[in-house]
Amino acid sequence: MSHNTFGHLFRVTTFGESHGISIGAVVDGCPPNLPISVEAIQGFLDKRKPGQNRFTTQRREADAVKILSGVFEDERTQGLRTTGTPIALLIENTDQRSKDYGEIRDSFRPGHADLTYDAKYGIRDYRGGGRSSARETACRVAAGAIARLVIPYVSIRGSLVQMGPHKIDRSNWDNNEIENNPFFCADAKAAKEWEVYLDGVRKSGSSCGAVIEVVASGVPAGWGSPLYGKLDAELASAMMSINAVKGVEIGEGFASASLSGEENADEIRMKDGKPDFQSNHAGGILGGISSGQDVVVRFAVKPTSSILNPRKTITSQGENTDIVTKGRHDPCVGIRAVPVGEAMMAIVLADQYLRHRGQMG
Amino acid sequence: MSHNTFGHLFRVTTFGESHGISIGAVVDGCPPNLPISVEAIQGFLDKRKPGQNRFTTQRREADAVKILSGVFEDERTQGLRTTGTPIALLIENTDQRSKDYGEIRDSFRPGHADLTYDAKYGIRDYRGGGRSSARETACRVAAGAIARLVIPYVSIRGSLVQMGPHKIDRSNWDNNEIENNPFFCADAKAAKEWEVYLDGVRKSGSSCGAVIEVVASGVPAGWGSPLYGKLDAELASAMMSINAVKGVEIGEGFASASLSGEENADEIRMKDGKPDFQSNHAGGILGGISSGQDVVVRFAVKPTSSILNPRKTITSQGENTDIVTKGRHDPCVGIRAVPVGEAMMAIVLADQYLRHRGQMG
Amino acid sequence: MSHNTFGHLFRVTTFGESHGISIGAVVDGCPPNLPISVEAIQGFLDKRKPGQNRFTTQRREADAVKILSGVFEDERTQGLRTTGTPIALLIENTDQRSKDYGEIRDSFRPGHADLTYDAKYGIRDYRGGGRSSARETACRVAAGAIARLVIPYVSIRGSLVQMGPHKIDRSNWDNNEIENNPFFCADAKAAKEWEVYLDGVRKSGSSCGAVIEVVASGVPAGWGSPLYGKLDAELASAMMSINAVKGVEIGEGFASASLSGEENADEIRMKDGKPDFQSNHAGGILGGISSGQDVVVRFAVKPTSSILNPRKTITSQGENTDIVTKGRHDPCVGIRAVPVGEAMMAIVLADQYLRHRGQMG
Amino acid sequence: MSHNTFGHLFRVTTFGESHGISIGAVVDGCPPNLPISVEAIQGFLDKRKPGQNRFTTQRREADAVKILSGVFEDERTQGLRTTGTPIALLIENTDQRSKDYGEIRDSFRPGHADLTYDAKYGIRDYRGGGRSSARETACRVAAGAIARLVIPYVSIRGSLVQMGPHKIDRSNWDNNEIENNPFFCADAKAAKEWEVYLDGVRKSGSSCGAVIEVVASGVPAGWGSPLYGKLDAELASAMMSINAVKGVEIGEGFASASLSGEENADEIRMKDGKPDFQSNHAGGILGGISSGQDVVVRFAVKPTSSILNPRKTITSQGENTDIVTKGRHDPCVGIRAVPVGEAMMAIVLADQYLRHRGQMG
Repeated sequence: MSHNTFGHLFRVTTFGESHGISIGAVVDGCPPNLPISVEAIQGFLDKRKPGQNRFTTQRREADAVKILSGVFEDERTQGLRTTGTPIALLIENTDQRSKDYGEIRDSFRPGHADLTYDAKYGIRDYRGGGRSSARETACRVAAGAIARLVIPYVSIRGSLVQMGPHKIDRSNWDNNEIENNPFFCADAKAAKEWEVYLDGVRKSGSSCGAVIEVVASGVPAGWGSPLYGKLDAELASAMMSINAVKGVEIGEGFASASLSGEENADEIRMKDGKPDFQSNHAGGILGGISSGQDVVVRFAVKPTSSILNPRKTITSQGENTDIVTKGRHDPCVGIRAVPVGEAMMAIVLADQYLRHRGQMG
Repeated sequence: MSHNTFGHLFRVTTFGESHGISIGAVVDGCPPNLPISVEAIQGFLDKRKPGQNRFTTQRREADAVKILSGVFEDERTQGLRTTGTPIALLIENTDQRSKDYGEIRDSFRPGHADLTYDAKYGIRDYRGGGRSSARETACRVAAGAIARLVIPYVSIRGSLVQMGPHKIDRSNWDNNEIENNPFFCADAKAAKEWEVYLDGVRKSGSSCGAVIEVVASGVPAGWGSPLYGKLDAELASAMMSINAVKGVEIGEGFASASLSGEENADEIRMKDGKPDFQSNHAGGILGGISSGQDVVVRFAVKPTSSILNPRKTITSQGENTDIVTKGRHDPCVGIRAVPVGEAMMAIVLADQYLRHRGQMG
Repeated sequence: MSHNTFGHLFRVTTFGESHGISIGAVVDGCPPNLPISVEAIQGFLDKRKPGQNRFTTQRREADAVKILSGVFEDERTQGLRTTGTPIALLIENTDQRSKDYGEIRDSFRPGHADLTYDAKYGIRDYRGGGRSSARETACRVAAGAIARLVIPYVSIRGSLVQMGPHKIDRSNWDNNEIENNPFFCADAKAAKEWEVYLDGVRKSGSSCGAVIEVVASGVPAGWGSPLYGKLDAELASAMMSINAVKGVEIGEGFASASLSGEENADEIRMKDGKPDFQSNHAGGILGGISSGQDVVVRFAVKPTSSILNPRKTITSQGENTDIVTKGRHDPCVGIRAVPVGEAMMAIVLADQYLRHRGQMG
Repeated sequence: MSHNTFGHLFRVTTFGESHGISIGAVVDGCPPNLPISVEAIQGFLDKRKPGQNRFTTQRREADAVKILSGVFEDERTQGLRTTGTPIALLIENTDQRSKDYGEIRDSFRPGHADLTYDAKYGIRDYRGGGRSSARETACRVAAGAIARLVIPYVSIRGSLVQMGPHKIDRSNWDNNEIENNPFFCADAKAAKEWEVYLDGVRKSGSSCGAVIEVVASGVPAGWGSPLYGKLDAELASAMMSINAVKGVEIGEGFASASLSGEENADEIRMKDGKPDFQSNHAGGILGGISSGQDVVVRFAVKPTSSILNPRKTITSQGENTDIVTKGRHDPCVGIRAVPVGEAMMAIVLADQYLRHRGQMG
């Protein structure tokens, strides 16, 4: 959780720029002897892969992941297993189109990290956003696939619950629909409407934001490291660290401010010898510790800054100018944030689980 | 950012339970030679102190802070200064009313951390919430006062922008009003209305939530540690770690999802030789790095769980029961979260500043 | 392991100066439900306490420890237990003699941290060494007493194996003798001789160094976090962080350089179904991981810099001068380092154990 | 300093096994805009490269390093520079001889990490030592080359001061000789004798240990993070984390125990307006902070465990057996530890420098 490393016992360090040789991650602290396969990791990467339909960027990356270390195939153990040593993952950048970067080299795109990287570092790899590109999130997804191996009994499911100003109708929720549309949307009717809406956005050269909900089921009560490593605090940090995210909420979130204490309290009864909550306004977290209910996080993604319509900006030489993003254009970057949010949920939970096990046995 | 420590170079470790002997904090990594006084720290604590009006808990704590270490008064330096060694702060608990804790010892209050602490630790100091009590936030405020000394040119101002369902009218905003009402509210008209509203909530034994906005002005462009120590990610973690917080947003936040790319982009012109942003939807942060604009954070506080109306719950023995909070009652805990949010902003910024200076000189 | 905090899951943060109000420690990450008592902690502190005989400093400190938080006495649990929240320990400074500090305020004592603290911080609490005083080690001993509770099956025993140039005769080793002399010496004959030797050193106003050996028995095979959190690397860091320590070695240590590969290899046979090592040149650690043998660490303490004979030095104003330490004088500070070394061993092992349990279950 | 990451602001994470696809490092937190070249890094790697003469292992590795990220060649900046983002370094394993690993797969080599890795992880890549192989130190050397860029005014020089039982004669010391013999030995006469000695060791199939001294000149006074991040504590951890190291000492080290306080104190005079120490028993560190003198560290490397003579051991099935290392054999692994020790010195100093700059400006 400093610089380019996330986590404490389950630690993910990522590296690489959008248009460099490759991007990658080192996953450290993973328990040994977990069965692992490149194919399983690749499966999660494919969900995030660009260019799969007209609604996401047309950049064409194979996003083929390689495991460089930390696993071992022994004739005795039969099949690849983690060894407890660092697992290095590498993804080569194959679609590094040679092009003229002149404009984004010299002018700061409003809403992008161009200006702030320049202010901080005085030098930046401007090609495709460099380190600040959403391309880095592929590493998160790959690392998240490994995190899931640590907590196989936890089921993590992300979906888009709002596109632009259009929210889903929760009474239409059907988990089976999530994989049935290009938006990871659980409301089939909304997905249909979004298709029309997003086509309009795309054709107009504009972009829109989104809200993603990620739910983890099967998290036992007791995970979390109060007070500054609270489960919700780390989820907030994890989600906010994803490109373009501007807000995070747990359970009822901002809406809880408008509820009365009576409405908001999740009452409890016993059922089958276990606590049975009558509602889940808390989003499965109390005092920074999981309660055994579903852990529910939502995060807001702002509209992509790269749009085809000119915006006022300045050059690095301090002159006023206008800028237009050319070429590939992602009308709703929030769609591909769904597998990324799932991955960050997995990483936070795996790390909290290991720390919990460390302190508690 | 693990267990009970927050920060990397500027590090705050807190300890203590609501009804123990004392609470306190150790602030490590503070630069030396900063003029410091107990009175200045006390001033911030007094803003958070309970029992100051009928709208906050009637617990009566002096909240008198003592500095145990890390400062030195030398005849040559004239006046107390930091020495660069750990600054230990101690606040004694004076209002530990002897009372029967039977009910909250044995029954889990819905919405409280009772059940989850029990699930995690198997033992807890149940008196007044123990470690999970909002009392700990006094330590944050004291540590935040020291953080401000590190970045004296940054001005940090928190205020309540929503109480229960009632938002302020931003066209009434007047910074001078914030200190003029018991709600840290910049809209004098709203404050008047809230008074009536909150009296009703209080008398009915209920509670309500709130939304707090914290703005830091004077933050230079360039602070932030991408990608996992992004300025916004750490602010999200910092605010979410405050008791009862369920959501955090930066700048436009969740509302940005509904904006178009054109609307959301903060256009830039040159003015007096500097970048001049035409708007601040980004909340002063791009790519996890400060842009030089105001840093704007909002967080939602849920309604206090301790209410005077009975709620269904279970006992630690697994039996159904009802529970009512007795005694002191805080109808809107969000009010006292204002100085706490300011303190966390100060701590995050001081830490990021030192890390920035470490890497960049 | 940064600034004033040691450890990862079991974390110790210390604060306080030699002549300030108090010194103390916050122990975070301790497992809950461990029976704990002030008396047990005090017992370890008493071993380190100054002024117990003519061979240690005549400073008179009660070194009475108070527990401020993190423990709970419940009528049900009967007796004090840890709660899993931060345990704050406080020791008041009672022997802060009012005296003229003029000389050590203005002149740098050779071999002391005076000059370097001044170079780094530009300000320092010069009274009695301030933060750099060996007084801080009382906090380590108190924290170490808690660490022992985490691994009660591990037995940790420190002893002096060399005073000045005089080594013990290992053929005389008798663990029972360690408590029978003021030097924690397992060789009764050597202890007798040291008494005469140290009286001479003391009376001449000089000082001497020492070598301490700390052995931990009962450490299971498998603890250690390779490659940069190796068990031996952390022991080296832990011991070297104690005041006046200039060298650390594991097992055969520096002597291993002179052995052949055949001599140095600890051969293994099976015995009672377990590996039985034929020797322990490795000091119980292979590849940074415990082997199940005794963990053996030695560290060298330099002679106390505070001596009664004048030494050439400079003033903070950059003038040549001579300096003599006045008043209390500790002829062999290594003696009191024995319980400190034991404490650091306990802290390293407790932390490594929790991390091992985190990763491995 | 946990798992596979070393450092705080300047952080090095390494990955990879001896006979896997590749090994590598991610260097995070490096300041931007430092001129960097693959050739400069390769130069340091070549000093450590195996198979350069008959005295080191005959494994033939090109050890060709690639930079995957964190640098940028811009037409404007002319030449490769660091960008402040993570620098990933990759070294492919080219000499992975296909061979029968049967014996070391099933039997634990005495003195190796085989047994402890098995005890900890229950699975290990046994080929060539896997993660515990000295091959990992190539990553340290590459990372160290980058660390040197951060503190170009510091000169770091390592040399062998003892081989087996044979120490150099310090009166023969000549820095220019260090590069003139295969042992990094500053004493030409000793180097000659060592040649004969080591040939004998090699031919007998045995091995010997060594002591390495690393000296850093040009370190300003003031670096170090007392009390648990002391400069000497981190150097101790850094050196002890190198394969086969069993002891670390600073300055006079263990010999200081035999000195009197008068002898050991480094007296100070003013010279050219600066403190001028009359000796350097302290090894350039007082109270964990650099004094401005040369920083002097020595560490002991045990004799290689892989020898051609049979040793008693057990199998993973718990049966007694004998084992002999076959094939390549490194009679004095300490030789190649010289550039590794230099690299760890550079990494510790670069990290301490950045942290110092963070706190102090």
